[in-house]
Amino acid sequence: MENYSIIDHRVYYNETDQMGRVYHSNYVVWMEKGRTEFIRDKGLSYKKLEELGVFLPVSHIEINFTKPIEYDSELKIKTILKKVTRIKVEFEYEIYDKELKTLYGTGKTTNIFMGSNGVLKRASKDLVEMIKK
Amino acid sequence: MENYSIIDHRVYYNETDQMGRVYHSNYVVWMEKGRTEFIRDKGLSYKKLEELGVFLPVSHIEINFTKPIEYDSELKIKTILKKVTRIKVEFEYEIYDKELKTLYGTGKTTNIFMGSNGVLKRASKDLVEMIKK
Amino acid sequence: MENYSIIDHRVYYNETDQMGRVYHSNYVVWMEKGRTEFIRDKGLSYKKLEELGVFLPVSHIEINFTKPIEYDSELKIKTILKKVTRIKVEFEYEIYDKELKTLYGTGKTTNIFMGSNGVLKRASKDLVEMIKK
Amino acid sequence: MENYSIIDHRVYYNETDQMGRVYHSNYVVWMEKGRTEFIRDKGLSYKKLEELGVFLPVSHIEINFTKPIEYDSELKIKTILKKVTRIKVEFEYEIYDKELKTLYGTGKTTNIFMGSNGVLKRASKDLVEMIKK
Repeated sequence: MENYSIIDHRVYYNETDQMGRVYHSNYVVWMEKGRTEFIRDKGLSYKKLEELGVFLPVSHIEINFTKPIEYDSELKIKTILKKVTRIKVEFEYEIYDKELKTLYGTGKTTNIFMGSNGVLKRASKDLVEMIKK
Repeated sequence: MENYSIIDHRVYYNETDQMGRVYHSNYVVWMEKGRTEFIRDKGLSYKKLEELGVFLPVSHIEINFTKPIEYDSELKIKTILKKVTRIKVEFEYEIYDKELKTLYGTGKTTNIFMGSNGVLKRASKDLVEMIKK
Repeated sequence: MENYSIIDHRVYYNETDQMGRVYHSNYVVWMEKGRTEFIRDKGLSYKKLEELGVFLPVSHIEINFTKPIEYDSELKIKTILKKVTRIKVEFEYEIYDKELKTLYGTGKTTNIFMGSNGVLKRASKDLVEMIKK
Repeated sequence: MENYSIIDHRVYYNETDQMGRVYHSNYVVWMEKGRTEFIRDKGLSYKKLEELGVFLPVSHIEINFTKPIEYDSELKIKTILKKVTRIKVEFEYEIYDKELKTLYGTGKTTNIFMGSNGVLKRASKDLVEMIKK
């Protein structure tokens, strides 16, 4: 069973640049929205995790910009869990039009488990299971 | 004696939009940079203030967009202290080209003194004097 | 009959700052989203207007930040048409929690009608009527 | 001879998030600033290139976030040319403190040459030579 979630995103003026397309740093933000909602779909939330002292900073990101995205586009962002251990979580992302037909770009992130003191901290087995299931 | 400071700013791609001009929310950020450097010119710093438990959130902002600003423009942002009390600080801003000849826009902010608990807190007289001088 | 529309917005990490609240320039973007959807509710769209050579840059903005907004908040942004003439459109904005009970802030914008050449250009009476109705 | 340029960047409030560090999408923007100034150091400018119908959209980006970056940090961003052909330009980036001692992160981008019509277009040999030299 594939383990993913899909969110909607519409492009407003603030995300465009003078080439008339979406400025590329916005993809980074969409990927964050995607994994936040993936986590929420598991009955968890980043916010609650942080209240429990579990932080998940990004340690690596990669994005391929395949086709330009225009102002006012309605997008689907698919976030796919690739791997989760007590050390880190790896997601992949696919950015589509609203019919999921045109692929505009793909991405990857690695997030590492950290405590509130900023030091790496193993996640509990329960948390890993909740994310995986 | 007028009480102001001037900073430089160059417009990169990320600040443009598909009208081929600077997207208007960026002026808000420039005004923050302007008042941060005004404070630093007084021998203070926002960062040190925060370490002392003094926060200065914005309670009001106003901006007039007079002329569009293009990609790669070199700007001067003038931050003028209008008023400082133990309750709040009021700044005005003027956004110019690098020769200070063309005025692209003007702005105003009110920032209020707050403690680290998020509750309003009077600034010390010393702090008010340091900002004023 | 009041003339308004309401959109939903959830706060993600990218909009927070180290005070643990929403950074204030984001309200500017929400207000843009609000008026874009107000226009869409009238059967128009910014995108189509631009294709017809009608641009609506912001000439003035004002925001009052009443209460801080936290990460992961679910907001309602109410956009209220105050005035539309062949020269300009004035909107007011109210930013609420999802139950529309807590008011976090208010704003105002003035947008002016412009042609694709960047010169002010009167809107057609039809367009004014469509926005008003 | 290594082929690089270095720019300065100071972190303001807008770039922080509620973890009290720089939000990761900002690195993407710094990398754009870095390569823009690299190009300018060669006596060229993105702006002039665009006026000549040469666009350079990003097709791939990668970032490693090694150490968190705090508010008010003074950074040096080093942009290193790795490869330039008539098809694309590859840069690498190193993000340091102002003494160039602490490495906060590294990145890579690929930009492809495109015409004003949005279609891939080979760069002239002269342009390639100017970037390389």
